[in-house]
Amino acid sequence: MKINQFAQVPTNISNIKEELKSINFYSDETEINQLFIDLMRKEKFSFSDTNVFWYEMDKIIADEKNTLKSFLINNHKLNLNVFYVIALQLLDFQIDVDFEIDKPIESMHKLGLKTINQLNNSQDLLKAWYLLLNTHNKYGLNLIDELASNGYYEKQELTNQLIFFNGKAQATFTTKDFYYETVFVETDLDSDMDGKNDLIKVEITRPKSNLKIPAIYTASPYDQGVNEKLGENLTHDVKKSLIEKPIGKEIINEQENIINNTKNKIPSSISENATLTHSIKPKYSLNDYLLVRGYASVYAAGIGTIDSDGFQTCGDEQQTASTIAVIEWLHGDRIAFTDRINHIQTKANWCNGNVAMTGRSYLGTLAIAAATTGVDGLKTIVPEAAISSWYDYYRENGLVIAPETFPGEDADVLAGETFSRSLVPGDNLKIRSKFDKYLNQMKKQQDRETGNYNQFWDKRNYLNNVNKIKADLLIVHGLNDWNVKPKNPGNLWQMIKNMNINKKIILHQGKHININTFPSFDYSDIINLWFSNKLYDKENNVDNILPTVIWQDNTLSNTWHKLNDWNKNNYETYSLNTTYDSFKNKISNELFDKYSVNYKNWQHDFYDLNNQNLTHNRIISTIELKEDKIINGDIKVNLRIKSSKNIGMLSIALLDNGDANRLKEFPTPIAPNGYKLGYKWYNDTLREFEINSKITSNKLITKAHINLQNRTAPNISEEIIPNEYYDVKVKLNPTIYKIPANRSLSLIIYSVDYEMTINNNDDIKYTIDLNNSTIKIPFE
Amino acid sequence: MKINQFAQVPTNISNIKEELKSINFYSDETEINQLFIDLMRKEKFSFSDTNVFWYEMDKIIADEKNTLKSFLINNHKLNLNVFYVIALQLLDFQIDVDFEIDKPIESMHKLGLKTINQLNNSQDLLKAWYLLLNTHNKYGLNLIDELASNGYYEKQELTNQLIFFNGKAQATFTTKDFYYETVFVETDLDSDMDGKNDLIKVEITRPKSNLKIPAIYTASPYDQGVNEKLGENLTHDVKKSLIEKPIGKEIINEQENIINNTKNKIPSSISENATLTHSIKPKYSLNDYLLVRGYASVYAAGIGTIDSDGFQTCGDEQQTASTIAVIEWLHGDRIAFTDRINHIQTKANWCNGNVAMTGRSYLGTLAIAAATTGVDGLKTIVPEAAISSWYDYYRENGLVIAPETFPGEDADVLAGETFSRSLVPGDNLKIRSKFDKYLNQMKKQQDRETGNYNQFWDKRNYLNNVNKIKADLLIVHGLNDWNVKPKNPGNLWQMIKNMNINKKIILHQGKHININTFPSFDYSDIINLWFSNKLYDKENNVDNILPTVIWQDNTLSNTWHKLNDWNKNNYETYSLNTTYDSFKNKISNELFDKYSVNYKNWQHDFYDLNNQNLTHNRIISTIELKEDKIINGDIKVNLRIKSSKNIGMLSIALLDNGDANRLKEFPTPIAPNGYKLGYKWYNDTLREFEINSKITSNKLITKAHINLQNRTAPNISEEIIPNEYYDVKVKLNPTIYKIPANRSLSLIIYSVDYEMTINNNDDIKYTIDLNNSTIKIPFE
Repeated sequence: MKINQFAQVPTNISNIKEELKSINFYSDETEINQLFIDLMRKEKFSFSDTNVFWYEMDKIIADEKNTLKSFLINNHKLNLNVFYVIALQLLDFQIDVDFEIDKPIESMHKLGLKTINQLNNSQDLLKAWYLLLNTHNKYGLNLIDELASNGYYEKQELTNQLIFFNGKAQATFTTKDFYYETVFVETDLDSDMDGKNDLIKVEITRPKSNLKIPAIYTASPYDQGVNEKLGENLTHDVKKSLIEKPIGKEIINEQENIINNTKNKIPSSISENATLTHSIKPKYSLNDYLLVRGYASVYAAGIGTIDSDGFQTCGDEQQTASTIAVIEWLHGDRIAFTDRINHIQTKANWCNGNVAMTGRSYLGTLAIAAATTGVDGLKTIVPEAAISSWYDYYRENGLVIAPETFPGEDADVLAGETFSRSLVPGDNLKIRSKFDKYLNQMKKQQDRETGNYNQFWDKRNYLNNVNKIKADLLIVHGLNDWNVKPKNPGNLWQMIKNMNINKKIILHQGKHININTFPSFDYSDIINLWFSNKLYDKENNVDNILPTVIWQDNTLSNTWHKLNDWNKNNYETYSLNTTYDSFKNKISNELFDKYSVNYKNWQHDFYDLNNQNLTHNRIISTIELKEDKIINGDIKVNLRIKSSKNIGMLSIALLDNGDANRLKEFPTPIAPNGYKLGYKWYNDTLREFEINSKITSNKLITKAHINLQNRTAPNISEEIIPNEYYDVKVKLNPTIYKIPANRSLSLIIYSVDYEMTINNNDDIKYTIDLNNSTIKIPFE
Repeated sequence: MKINQFAQVPTNISNIKEELKSINFYSDETEINQLFIDLMRKEKFSFSDTNVFWYEMDKIIADEKNTLKSFLINNHKLNLNVFYVIALQLLDFQIDVDFEIDKPIESMHKLGLKTINQLNNSQDLLKAWYLLLNTHNKYGLNLIDELASNGYYEKQELTNQLIFFNGKAQATFTTKDFYYETVFVETDLDSDMDGKNDLIKVEITRPKSNLKIPAIYTASPYDQGVNEKLGENLTHDVKKSLIEKPIGKEIINEQENIINNTKNKIPSSISENATLTHSIKPKYSLNDYLLVRGYASVYAAGIGTIDSDGFQTCGDEQQTASTIAVIEWLHGDRIAFTDRINHIQTKANWCNGNVAMTGRSYLGTLAIAAATTGVDGLKTIVPEAAISSWYDYYRENGLVIAPETFPGEDADVLAGETFSRSLVPGDNLKIRSKFDKYLNQMKKQQDRETGNYNQFWDKRNYLNNVNKIKADLLIVHGLNDWNVKPKNPGNLWQMIKNMNINKKIILHQGKHININTFPSFDYSDIINLWFSNKLYDKENNVDNILPTVIWQDNTLSNTWHKLNDWNKNNYETYSLNTTYDSFKNKISNELFDKYSVNYKNWQHDFYDLNNQNLTHNRIISTIELKEDKIINGDIKVNLRIKSSKNIGMLSIALLDNGDANRLKEFPTPIAPNGYKLGYKWYNDTLREFEINSKITSNKLITKAHINLQNRTAPNISEEIIPNEYYDVKVKLNPTIYKIPANRSLSLIIYSVDYEMTINNNDDIKYTIDLNNSTIKIPFE
């Protein structure tokens, strides 16, 4: 195994001493062995009896012949090697499996762990010990967090106090003292058009603290439940022919005013505390991890969900306004009530006014939505696998494009599925017919007929308002996420690059997943370091310590690199190198039935580059690379192409080609309940990306799709004259991808993508002018 | 979905009233609507404000037109239909998905839920309400348990008190008050031969209670960690030829005395409480479920594990003695110390002296081991997927047989893997070479050469001592468990059938799994009902209420039946119906390499009954059944067979043959964290066996293996004269299996089973005298 820690803060000796004192992990003993014993007694805080302590020392070895007890009792002097033999044991590494006892320092380095250089005096030992407390063990925790999860801070009587150690808020907050509260924030909008401003239910979990604390706010439309049945019923049929679109440009108007200035609820009194509670269960484990470290966890599902008013609008400005209403309340700028009925106001007196938003997928998307309003109090967002423009989620270049594994999904389907008010029979009775009408309207406006960028999608394009962002951004995305495709963070990153905010991006090798429980990567520490600075104003130098880009290597397990940017301009141009210059869309009816009944049947053939079924249905162009290369950014494919009909759609995929043991598609669970979130608190499963022991012959790097009528822009439909050549420029989704020298790149150009595009068997032939077509690849 | 509740206790109206009073869920209101409102206010205990309560009533519907609020406010009178429309909503079922609003009673019954017949007065309503509180909701909990998991008992100020409701201990115990303690029990044995009696570490988690409480004790050799590397290194090569064994009978002596009468530790003082703690994390969720219901959870890993003395002996009488030492301490019959060093005694003053053992696999095995000593205080055991004789785990009829998915494992491998003392470097330094010698001795004694039943295995055969059992038995086993094969519970069941103890058995369709989080089956209730009676002496009639056998149907999802016994004597005899009368062992070298490198390659061909690779390597005999049949018990295959050599081994498998949508092999996770174990406590994943949407053409029902030299007994090696016929009787593993009329049974007779037997390509031909061979099948 290999550990990559990015969130360790270099600290000078005087601060080291201060910090050790602040957590009672200090002794002013100057004799090195005695100081070491003092520190070990702290480490073994569960064993206060001296005899038992020495029994524990006898369980550890100092070298090949001595236990730590015999080593110390016989007055051997502590040295650097012995220190790291012991350190490795305290970090739960196993001899002969994880480290070699005769090479402890080399073993530390092999594991990716930092060491000090010398151990001559008590000051060196304090340095070494401080570093050790901030070093990850086998199970993804810094030693100090491991001790905290076993009750260290309780034993030290330091609970429910804000303490920073190495720049990060400590797990001192006691779970049994947590408050579980529900309040209702009043918005200025009326999305269900009942004449009343929508109320939004907010569920708060927060530690007891004498200081005001910040809030980690998750806007999750799924949080109150989903109506799967309604979603299923709304799902669209993807088996249909490509149609010729009328020529023209979509009309996109200014945004409408959604603010309803009539306030309905006048507070009659104020309650010091919230009076309603909420059910208690584990949530996204990163939030639970942060809770014990002094960050409140605030969830709201927003308009259209259980105990809130309004409709699910799937990404429009009303949803954004309902999302930020919660921040406004937390920041003291908006009213909330103790319940939906009585007019009793309640304030977030416990909150220091600083808010962060986190969350994956739709949740992170609403974080981006909120940030692009510039709302006060929102100091930072950590959007994980998030959408930056809904057009880039359900559409692409004039085509309807499905998120991975969800053919037939669209904005209306997601709106229906997350309209959890429909799960409340009494509410459903009153609101449903009105919502069904709204869904019908949405169905028209989203316009699956043309797939064009229009008013509906422009309302749902957060990139329109990027210039309003005041919050710092820490973006997290999987380079293999074909649900929320990499162009979402890619476009956002390009636009914020030169803005005067702090921004970082983490690009991992996962699909649409969470990455907070990998032993190889100190993600939770990074978030804690970031939030300690952004929300608690702790000066920890995080903006300089964290690299701009952290990129997980796609060829090695447990390997995360620092890069200085995503999207390089260092392009090389390649010509198309292929035996055919044309391909057709049509396949046999049997094959069409097989592919369209289950897109996995198509994928099976598609990823077999020699598959006879598809010989005439695609062009494969190969690029041989002479040395190891890292692609970094948008690949541009410029084609001169003609269609035999007045319609045409292209799919383009780039593959890494060659037999290899690649990373597995999904992280492997390596220890259920192995990741401890805190003392007397929840645990999560440790996971890690492993190298597949099975050899695979290729892997998708990136892809894109385009309707040839939209060759100029997604909002412009142009004519296609049959058999006339057009120049078409397609940007593939941006990536960072290492190709070893012995492998090649295969560019595949085809038409129907049975997983993502509409499925049709139209009889169209496409021909490419190879001499006027190129691929441009940006290299690191 | 369909729910099967076995643990509901029929209760008369006067007890109903008493019980409702005891949990503050009572009103003496006689007007039916007002009584209903009183009860609903209890149900909605989180909403004490009257206005908010009525808002909640508006979320429920009473019929197609009215919310419950409008229904009650307009003084419509509550009736049976309306009651069950509301009940279904309170149980979290979804309209149109789980039930039909115009057929609530029929919907309840379709879901497998009980209803009352009439609702004319307040007494009827109390009956209906009581039944509803004891009815399972969509997420596997009785309504009262759902309310408890949301804080009902805290709100009622009934925490940390023992309360029974419908015969089952209630979730009243507060998790924040739990004690986490470690003590060290002194045994009378010296398994590591260091001259000192072995101390055993015991980790206790227990609720705060003013009454003494019982202990649920889990003896888990895995609990302190496993040394996977050591296990790997010890794993045996299974690629080897069958050898001729010398003729003879194994000598089996009386058991030796293992008791070491020298006590080493003399208590110098007594401590009122334990002084050491232990780390806190979720364990087997059934135990965590029981903890909040007033049962302590006690874990011990036993000899050879971290912080205990001794060697891992894998199932011998020393391990059994170390296992029951913990029970003896809990029962007040043995000394324990607060730590391993000081001589301070500590007593289990909190324990009422009643102990149950639970656990799956090795854990359940040690429960059987303990029960067969007749130790005082052990009132009941619930062995899940447990071994009753280690010979039936690692051997069969004179052959070495691997547990499913673990070729090459044996007793020494498991002993090494669970010898967690080796993970403690200081301890390993001192003990390892001695343990390695012990392992070497074990390796010889387990005798992989002959595979015979000998002294080693006789020491590890708990069936020898079944007559000593005093504890009541609730056995749980998967009929598709080819790790711990069904003959383990089968043999035990046969032997206890006529003993004067209470015994029940649950046979499910899983492999080697836990079954406590299936919404279709009230397993946790059953255990709670059983333990309330056995450990708290609560008179709840459990021995009569629970059927003797609960059997999960193998053709339908969510279906569990009552049967009156396992293993019927209602045999029908069939002759062998096959085109060939002989088969050979040898296959091509290429095929042998393919099969032996990975047994899954062999399984792929084996389960394809027309596979050409195996045409001459097996006999397939088919039995057509004219009607639906249920096999119940041991299938007996009587063969007259000859081998072409002086050696011979047979494998016999019975398959259910015919295309069908069968249950999936593994339960499907349906809701992560969906199963609530208690208030402010852990959650587990809800799982359910689903019907596979993919059609499968056959499925293994049962199997067996035999060495022809052991045709008389596993401990007797006899001569095989080449080409001479012998009568061989083989009992296949017992099962209960339903075969629909349109399917057939296929009996497959072959030699090497690449998953379980040694892998060899010996050139042997087997011939069966078909006229003198039969299959006898016991039908229900």
